[in-house]
Amino acid sequence: MPLIRLSLRAGKDAAYHLSLVTGIYTALREVFAVPENDLFALVHEHPASGFVYDPGYLGIARDDDLVMIQITANDTRDTAQKRALYARIVRNLSADPGLRPENVLINLVDVARENWSFGLGDMQYVQAAGTA
Amino acid sequence: MPLIRLSLRAGKDAAYHLSLVTGIYTALREVFAVPENDLFALVHEHPASGFVYDPGYLGIARDDDLVMIQITANDTRDTAQKRALYARIVRNLSADPGLRPENVLINLVDVARENWSFGLGDMQYVQAAGTA
Amino acid sequence: MPLIRLSLRAGKDAAYHLSLVTGIYTALREVFAVPENDLFALVHEHPASGFVYDPGYLGIARDDDLVMIQITANDTRDTAQKRALYARIVRNLSADPGLRPENVLINLVDVARENWSFGLGDMQYVQAAGTA
Repeated sequence: MPLIRLSLRAGKDAAYHLSLVTGIYTALREVFAVPENDLFALVHEHPASGFVYDPGYLGIARDDDLVMIQITANDTRDTAQKRALYARIVRNLSADPGLRPENVLINLVDVARENWSFGLGDMQYVQAAGTA
Repeated sequence: MPLIRLSLRAGKDAAYHLSLVTGIYTALREVFAVPENDLFALVHEHPASGFVYDPGYLGIARDDDLVMIQITANDTRDTAQKRALYARIVRNLSADPGLRPENVLINLVDVARENWSFGLGDMQYVQAAGTA
Repeated sequence: MPLIRLSLRAGKDAAYHLSLVTGIYTALREVFAVPENDLFALVHEHPASGFVYDPGYLGIARDDDLVMIQITANDTRDTAQKRALYARIVRNLSADPGLRPENVLINLVDVARENWSFGLGDMQYVQAAGTA
């Protein structure tokens, strides 16, 4: 159910992209109560003019290896789980592909469980009731 | 008002992309109470390493023709309308361009009516009041 | 904190993209209470088949110079601030790079303050409490 949307500078290879996706998925599995195999991720590559960031906002030293991660997920996680997710994503991406912790920006977008269809045109997360 | 954002594997032609957009727009018109001509859609093409999906999550057999659809729309639709939208999008895209129903993933992002400006810098969906 | 995601037709140069980003950032600073240096923006370029818009919805005459702007930001702004933001973005982009006001479409996505990590795996906008 989480839809992972990554943006980074163009120039990294496929293995690098897959390491990013795997590290995020693993973090979601480990601390965000995401089901096994619930993996859907999109990578967007940008040239310099299409990837704009401040190199020092909040005193954090970012560079061109920055990855901006937007994750759309159900609104059923609390603040502590979100905090744990941020830390775990950074830990995983520091290990592989070796990102500096300063280069991981994460934004969550919360949605309702009824806001997903995983195929077949069904609303898999919410069963139809008499009114639906 | 819905902003449609599609992601799919690179390699399909323009006619295919337009069939996807048309099928989704038609479904929004038919069952989601979207006004005529309210059509704004973005297509993102991804190489294999930038388009990651599980081929069997929830027992649904996806392949590389999967289309991931994220639609941002006003939060004025109920569960039944969302359910109807999923079914109709799949029906339309099965007819043209011939997508298998398993290959349609949909995610809705709800926003307030005041969250849109369609041009001229105005907030067209919410009239200015004494406080605005 | 706002994450700015722009989409436009391919073919404009880097200076044009940066003018768009700068105009939006400046508007966010001027009327949306965004901190200095809080600048994160992604530009997506699309071919014609991947950039679909109605040229007259709501009586507004759009053309291929249309820019679709999706901004994810904290849900702490009221309707008046959102209205002011739309007007200011259009004013700024009319001045530079010279966009017609009809060619600016804006959508806001509201999120909670806890939905951001700006690096290091921390939740910078919400301090950890005894429960977190």
